[in-house]
Amino acid sequence: MAPQISRLRVAVSGLGRMGARHANHFLHRTPRAELVAAFTPDPKELAWAKTNLEPWGVTMYNDYDEMLRHEGLQAVCVATVTTVHAEHTIKAIEAGKHVLCEKPLSTDLAECQKVLAVSRAHPNLKVMCGFSRRFDASYLSAHALTVSGSIGRPTILRSQTCDKYDPSGFFVQYAQFSGGIFVDCNIHDIDLALWFFSAGGTSTSTPRTLPRVKSVMAVGVTALEPDLAAHGDVDNGVGVVEFYDGQIAYFYASRMNAPGQHDMTEIIGTKGKLSVNANPTTGLLESHLPSGIHRDIPQNYYERFEMAFVEEARQFTDAVLDGGVVPVDIESSVEAVKIGVVDA
Amino acid sequence: MAPQISRLRVAVSGLGRMGARHANHFLHRTPRAELVAAFTPDPKELAWAKTNLEPWGVTMYNDYDEMLRHEGLQAVCVATVTTVHAEHTIKAIEAGKHVLCEKPLSTDLAECQKVLAVSRAHPNLKVMCGFSRRFDASYLSAHALTVSGSIGRPTILRSQTCDKYDPSGFFVQYAQFSGGIFVDCNIHDIDLALWFFSAGGTSTSTPRTLPRVKSVMAVGVTALEPDLAAHGDVDNGVGVVEFYDGQIAYFYASRMNAPGQHDMTEIIGTKGKLSVNANPTTGLLESHLPSGIHRDIPQNYYERFEMAFVEEARQFTDAVLDGGVVPVDIESSVEAVKIGVVDA
Amino acid sequence: MAPQISRLRVAVSGLGRMGARHANHFLHRTPRAELVAAFTPDPKELAWAKTNLEPWGVTMYNDYDEMLRHEGLQAVCVATVTTVHAEHTIKAIEAGKHVLCEKPLSTDLAECQKVLAVSRAHPNLKVMCGFSRRFDASYLSAHALTVSGSIGRPTILRSQTCDKYDPSGFFVQYAQFSGGIFVDCNIHDIDLALWFFSAGGTSTSTPRTLPRVKSVMAVGVTALEPDLAAHGDVDNGVGVVEFYDGQIAYFYASRMNAPGQHDMTEIIGTKGKLSVNANPTTGLLESHLPSGIHRDIPQNYYERFEMAFVEEARQFTDAVLDGGVVPVDIESSVEAVKIGVVDA
Amino acid sequence: MAPQISRLRVAVSGLGRMGARHANHFLHRTPRAELVAAFTPDPKELAWAKTNLEPWGVTMYNDYDEMLRHEGLQAVCVATVTTVHAEHTIKAIEAGKHVLCEKPLSTDLAECQKVLAVSRAHPNLKVMCGFSRRFDASYLSAHALTVSGSIGRPTILRSQTCDKYDPSGFFVQYAQFSGGIFVDCNIHDIDLALWFFSAGGTSTSTPRTLPRVKSVMAVGVTALEPDLAAHGDVDNGVGVVEFYDGQIAYFYASRMNAPGQHDMTEIIGTKGKLSVNANPTTGLLESHLPSGIHRDIPQNYYERFEMAFVEEARQFTDAVLDGGVVPVDIESSVEAVKIGVVDA
Repeated sequence: MAPQISRLRVAVSGLGRMGARHANHFLHRTPRAELVAAFTPDPKELAWAKTNLEPWGVTMYNDYDEMLRHEGLQAVCVATVTTVHAEHTIKAIEAGKHVLCEKPLSTDLAECQKVLAVSRAHPNLKVMCGFSRRFDASYLSAHALTVSGSIGRPTILRSQTCDKYDPSGFFVQYAQFSGGIFVDCNIHDIDLALWFFSAGGTSTSTPRTLPRVKSVMAVGVTALEPDLAAHGDVDNGVGVVEFYDGQIAYFYASRMNAPGQHDMTEIIGTKGKLSVNANPTTGLLESHLPSGIHRDIPQNYYERFEMAFVEEARQFTDAVLDGGVVPVDIESSVEAVKIGVVDA
Repeated sequence: MAPQISRLRVAVSGLGRMGARHANHFLHRTPRAELVAAFTPDPKELAWAKTNLEPWGVTMYNDYDEMLRHEGLQAVCVATVTTVHAEHTIKAIEAGKHVLCEKPLSTDLAECQKVLAVSRAHPNLKVMCGFSRRFDASYLSAHALTVSGSIGRPTILRSQTCDKYDPSGFFVQYAQFSGGIFVDCNIHDIDLALWFFSAGGTSTSTPRTLPRVKSVMAVGVTALEPDLAAHGDVDNGVGVVEFYDGQIAYFYASRMNAPGQHDMTEIIGTKGKLSVNANPTTGLLESHLPSGIHRDIPQNYYERFEMAFVEEARQFTDAVLDGGVVPVDIESSVEAVKIGVVDA
Repeated sequence: MAPQISRLRVAVSGLGRMGARHANHFLHRTPRAELVAAFTPDPKELAWAKTNLEPWGVTMYNDYDEMLRHEGLQAVCVATVTTVHAEHTIKAIEAGKHVLCEKPLSTDLAECQKVLAVSRAHPNLKVMCGFSRRFDASYLSAHALTVSGSIGRPTILRSQTCDKYDPSGFFVQYAQFSGGIFVDCNIHDIDLALWFFSAGGTSTSTPRTLPRVKSVMAVGVTALEPDLAAHGDVDNGVGVVEFYDGQIAYFYASRMNAPGQHDMTEIIGTKGKLSVNANPTTGLLESHLPSGIHRDIPQNYYERFEMAFVEEARQFTDAVLDGGVVPVDIESSVEAVKIGVVDA
Repeated sequence: MAPQISRLRVAVSGLGRMGARHANHFLHRTPRAELVAAFTPDPKELAWAKTNLEPWGVTMYNDYDEMLRHEGLQAVCVATVTTVHAEHTIKAIEAGKHVLCEKPLSTDLAECQKVLAVSRAHPNLKVMCGFSRRFDASYLSAHALTVSGSIGRPTILRSQTCDKYDPSGFFVQYAQFSGGIFVDCNIHDIDLALWFFSAGGTSTSTPRTLPRVKSVMAVGVTALEPDLAAHGDVDNGVGVVEFYDGQIAYFYASRMNAPGQHDMTEIIGTKGKLSVNANPTTGLLESHLPSGIHRDIPQNYYERFEMAFVEEARQFTDAVLDGGVVPVDIESSVEAVKIGVVDA
């Protein structure tokens, strides 16, 4: 029989580390979507696409504007370097495409606000910033429990993003684009604070509004990579955000976590606390050896959040095909950058 | 562009609980396979397929033999009730199809041996019994560590399969077909014993042979469902298998685990122990409430092993397309039944 | 001011590994007791006592009978080698002393029954076998929950005693006295089965009677110490005990646990399970290192159960001074040996 | 035999919650010390002492100065309300007694410095502030590992003190004396930062000097007890301390932790992290119930740190009797207050 399902036709812009993953997710792991096109100006990424995308019927472009004119294209996933996020997003919207843009929209607040304005001018298009943690099963359960009031009113949020140390110095190079550790790493944690603090915690009918920022402070050190200082960046940072209405979020980011990726969050309410990943582990295996009991943890962000990225692609696809609200609202993604760009 | 990939054309036999899942895995989660057909004689299952399979181009059959004649069909996944596993597997092999059969091949040892004989008569066809735990990431890591010698020689294996109590009495009904708790639940644990005890534990070049059984004993009780006794079954059972060459496996199966599914395994070697799921949890969330700290565990076998089933479909597909060895050899699957059919 | 408290005057027999610890507990950690005397025929132990006991006012004896005549002596803690337990216990009772005897009473069932008879002939004296796990805080909580009915009727008990491997070969030497791994190690687990299975699980008013044994089986292997075979012993053993009234206990003992001591118990009832030490650890410290996350576990039985031994001394003292029932009844300690002496 | 050991003669000042515990520790759990006297002006505490201390030979005083003249008295443990700590400590020193003073020395920095000056004027007397966490086995292991260099250079320290919510409003009353949550609760965490950041982390021969404070900030909210505001206090607070030489400590304190006491600390170095109590639990028991898996945590500070308080008494006693250095130097205890008194 011939299939009767019509699937969302998606293109991916950028096939670097995250772009290649997004391409795979839309190609193989999002049943209601099909990957029809991809853009990259990079010869190495293009060679990868020859083997991994073209045989599956994906058309490659080395010109982004041309890709936007791919026949029947409905949506674009923007996964280029951060500095191009806003431009590609705006072009796609103006070409009438729905957009899933990797976080952050930009490290420049004015750019973010431009994206917001263009998005508002096209209310029929779905525009969403990909804050992947919001699609992780454990975070989703925590959020549902918070909304249902099981911890009372959310009051304190602690969240950290800790990467395994990469001795290659990649992140020092990357520092010139990343906007600094606070906006590059803690942007996830900031987003979580906005998400949980607007969750109400008393009933689902509470109108959800973004909490208003009262103060932001951040301090940092360069423990392993003194060269980061040249870019005004650090490899370990601590930040505190006070909100009006009696809520505080505090954050930690590190580029030198020894065993791997350890991102964790606690949402502390007046009646209880939800803890996500206090006890990190890759899976369910422990080794009992003469030197003690050992377990591994994920080696990088993707190992930890692979399924969340897949779920993100699925929910974005569903929102477009079924006309629903996108799960991450664009206003809060702009607000996250606004908090994140504070100087350390 | 038109896709140039040729994918494995698979049919699923039986669309009950597990059959529907297998159908989904081949349809949506195994990129190199396509689901072309499915068989079920059941009107309810057929109605489900109208909505969930036919729109994707899957042809439905209510006659198994007819389905085997579906044009271009290459492989069959047998997921009917256990009593039909062997018959459908044999028919599929004789029709020239590769087969992935749900465990166990049969609860009748003679039937299993018939499958083995037919399979051996068709050495060009891949025939594999779906022992899903062998595809779980934590078990795979444990096996790799065992093969690499990190725990010395595997000596003792403890393994349990504990289902959440189902007050509907389903498993009492099911007892007439299941072959008893030992072969129905502990068959997974028995399979693991065969897998790990043939893993060598000294080097990868060790010729892997199945361990030989010296003695088997099992005892059981009916704690919650006295009606099980009518089928000669129990709701809690303990079994011990001695092997020649100094290895012991011991098992526990229960149908009354309060919080959900808790399957766990320890592989104990002369230099260390590997523990899979000693510390069960659904994800990475814990709730700190006035009554203490709480976490959930998976509610059923599929919640625990969903990704393993997906991986099973992928590896079976790869083995067929690439001509490799199937990851679960059929001899050991027959041996598992041989151990499991011992009377309690 | 002069103290007005009268304390129990205790002597310890045997100052080997456990004897020295018992002496310390009565001397320094049992406020209502005072250690007045100790017996050892061993010059090394005597030298230790010169430094550690005599300066605190403890009188040393190298003749057990003479020690029993120490003026004012009220109770004896028997901590000699197992083969002398019964003889010293009987002599102490006959001399009118209360007795706390290290487990087991004897590895010879007839000897145990003799102790029981002598004890019954002196109903005014407290005689208790030191099953230390019954005084561990986690086991005590588990027992209280079982008695209160929180897991329904206790049905299955799994328990293990796993020692760290001692390459000195000590336990091979010791095998000639120990009575075999089942009675030496699993005697604790057997005792727990008797304790929990007589706990009722419905209400505290249930008359507590010992469960009656229906069958016992045990198998074992010598994985690391083939010389154990000369003593009919093994270094890894599995045992299963069926009780009338639908209860099963199963045990594992090992002399080769790589990281240290791992004793654990699960009490499985019709409504829930209590798990003691599924997730072993020495304390609350974990190290996050490049090789993963690590934790230590206790290196020996005493590291794990030190506080239980102290509590045992305190509760024994209280029972004598206040005239209460001893927390471990002597009948069940004899029954434990009866189960434990089964041949592997 | 008559004992030949000479023990340290100690008195306790104050028999409130902590004072009574200190009295017990010196009376029953510190073999080398004897409790000879105690002071309290409170009739209820005096009644308690009649039953619990006097029968053991402890002389009671309702006048502190008179107690200091108790014949043969060598040391005083000051455990009164915080506001009297400094005065009693100074008087004891001037009377020639060694002092173990409960934390903090004072909530007034000038008072602390006066204690320091008096202490320096009596170099032959041991004066120590009782920062109990430094005597907890897990913290001691973490410190030893830090000193040995196993985590490289300690760079970031995160530490929290979270009390179970006490609906009686006690801590609101107490707020007028406590000095605020930062100096009352986080003083422990601040002390840990000073301890670990002066631990070197490269070799034991590194001269240990206190890290120098660069900046301190703290913010807080009153989530459950608005009346705290009257005392300038909060029930949840977050603080960040920057040190020169690239080290940051950040703290959280809460009076509303739902399940009980949860104090935890992470010491993050350039090569690894040590985590104390990330995974809190009372003991080794978990309940597997229909509602999930549950465990309890300590209900208050003493349940968590009882053994640390005992060890503190022992080490103080040893330092006095053997003439060693006290394990907590008085300079760092003054520095902790200096950091803690910053305004929120």
